[in-house]
Amino acid sequence: MATSRRINNVAIVGVGMIGGSIGMALRRRGIANQVVGIGQRQSTLRIARQRGAISSSTVNLKRGVSEADLVVICTPVRTIPDLVCATAEAAPPGALITDAGSTKTDIVQKLKGRLGPGARYLGSHPLAGSEQSGPQNADASLLEGRTVIVTPTRGTDSTDRRRLKRFWNSLGARVAEMTPSEHDRCVAAISHLPHLVATALASSTANQELPFAASGWMDTTRVASGDVDMWIDILKENRDHVLKSARRFEKLMGSLCNALQRNDTRTMRRILQDAKQKRDSIM
Amino acid sequence: MATSRRINNVAIVGVGMIGGSIGMALRRRGIANQVVGIGQRQSTLRIARQRGAISSSTVNLKRGVSEADLVVICTPVRTIPDLVCATAEAAPPGALITDAGSTKTDIVQKLKGRLGPGARYLGSHPLAGSEQSGPQNADASLLEGRTVIVTPTRGTDSTDRRRLKRFWNSLGARVAEMTPSEHDRCVAAISHLPHLVATALASSTANQELPFAASGWMDTTRVASGDVDMWIDILKENRDHVLKSARRFEKLMGSLCNALQRNDTRTMRRILQDAKQKRDSIM
Repeated sequence: MATSRRINNVAIVGVGMIGGSIGMALRRRGIANQVVGIGQRQSTLRIARQRGAISSSTVNLKRGVSEADLVVICTPVRTIPDLVCATAEAAPPGALITDAGSTKTDIVQKLKGRLGPGARYLGSHPLAGSEQSGPQNADASLLEGRTVIVTPTRGTDSTDRRRLKRFWNSLGARVAEMTPSEHDRCVAAISHLPHLVATALASSTANQELPFAASGWMDTTRVASGDVDMWIDILKENRDHVLKSARRFEKLMGSLCNALQRNDTRTMRRILQDAKQKRDSIM
Repeated sequence: MATSRRINNVAIVGVGMIGGSIGMALRRRGIANQVVGIGQRQSTLRIARQRGAISSSTVNLKRGVSEADLVVICTPVRTIPDLVCATAEAAPPGALITDAGSTKTDIVQKLKGRLGPGARYLGSHPLAGSEQSGPQNADASLLEGRTVIVTPTRGTDSTDRRRLKRFWNSLGARVAEMTPSEHDRCVAAISHLPHLVATALASSTANQELPFAASGWMDTTRVASGDVDMWIDILKENRDHVLKSARRFEKLMGSLCNALQRNDTRTMRRILQDAKQKRDSIM
């Protein structure tokens, strides 16, 4: 792990659950001298200040990033490309811009040709979070022991890669590097598909059966509680990979049902054992 | 809630996670004077004794139930009908026999014509448990606040219904009554289908993606860690209801994927909102 170094000024654009957690960790660990929160609503910024996630706040992006060494954009994925461009224009030369969005290819494509030669953007995706949202659900230890995927492209500077890795490491997270496309394929399988599946399962349950839901149903459907519009954005931005993962899932679901129908214990056992082995391997 | 009354002798056939938990609760709460554990392996019975789940044990069913006022059969579903018959022959007149099996119609059908006129069997299904098994994972508070479904049939004595309700209430559980067929349809949706779905999801995840699984994947697939053979039995015994639930799920999954493919945000939002509302209603 790289050693942590103090940063003078970190700006967080969007201080919801993820942005708030990053801010709390930065301040708790004494990593940044100043953490500036930038948001649209004063009420949200107030909660973030009260929770100790940011040291100051503003609704003005230009003012908020004007002294930033590092900017972390933690807003819904759909809004990220425009915010990266606006930040690149307003932040001091040399400021590194990253984000916490759940998809990457779409962001990189939308940024193509829009950033000046001095702009330094490098995408991140912290694999942490929950079905909850808002700074009231932020948690200083959210990133501890978690993985952050960083997605360099051909143009990425190796100094920026090291800087960003050091930043996430300093918050207690591991860093893995992937291309934007590798990232999107991977999270389609381990995050976006589970969301689709949990949603279809919860929605397929009849109202009169709900009172009998026990821990199995509760766990399997937990993520379906997530913010609806945020998830629609994510699924749409990663559509092709999500649909590919879904087809792989549907095929296996079909094989399982077919085996059950035909009383084919051998096939059922093969699939159940494979699933158990995979699940047990990351207990 | 019915008031609890002390029972002299309760026999538990199969002291795994569920049977062990029932025994521990009975003894912790001082509900039974004696809790006899009956099992096939001395090693398992020893752990159950050490954990305080049973006061004595035997591998001999006939001897174990010979003084029982109540017998709870907590073995794999496939073995339950024969054990009910053997228990009915060996237990004292008036002893009430129940079980903790996850399916009911199949048990009732297999018992038809095999029980003498004095035999008193009434099925139960505690909606509690986990992906863990064995008396080492038993928990005295497992049933507290949980629901036990009791499945009377036309021939069931109303005294037995009251006795059994009182028994589960005394362990801290709520009781709901359903016919065996209503029970099987309900648990297909809230327990067996989630198991199929979690299994297909875990198995569809590629090995190289597993290291990036975070809390969403972990929760959605948790039940896939359950005992493989136990689950094959359950799914086979409740096949028709499980397949019917699976078709409902697959239809919704298909609608979601189609909507995503066609960029139909309205349909996506309708399904995601319905799922979120259902999930949030039982937080």
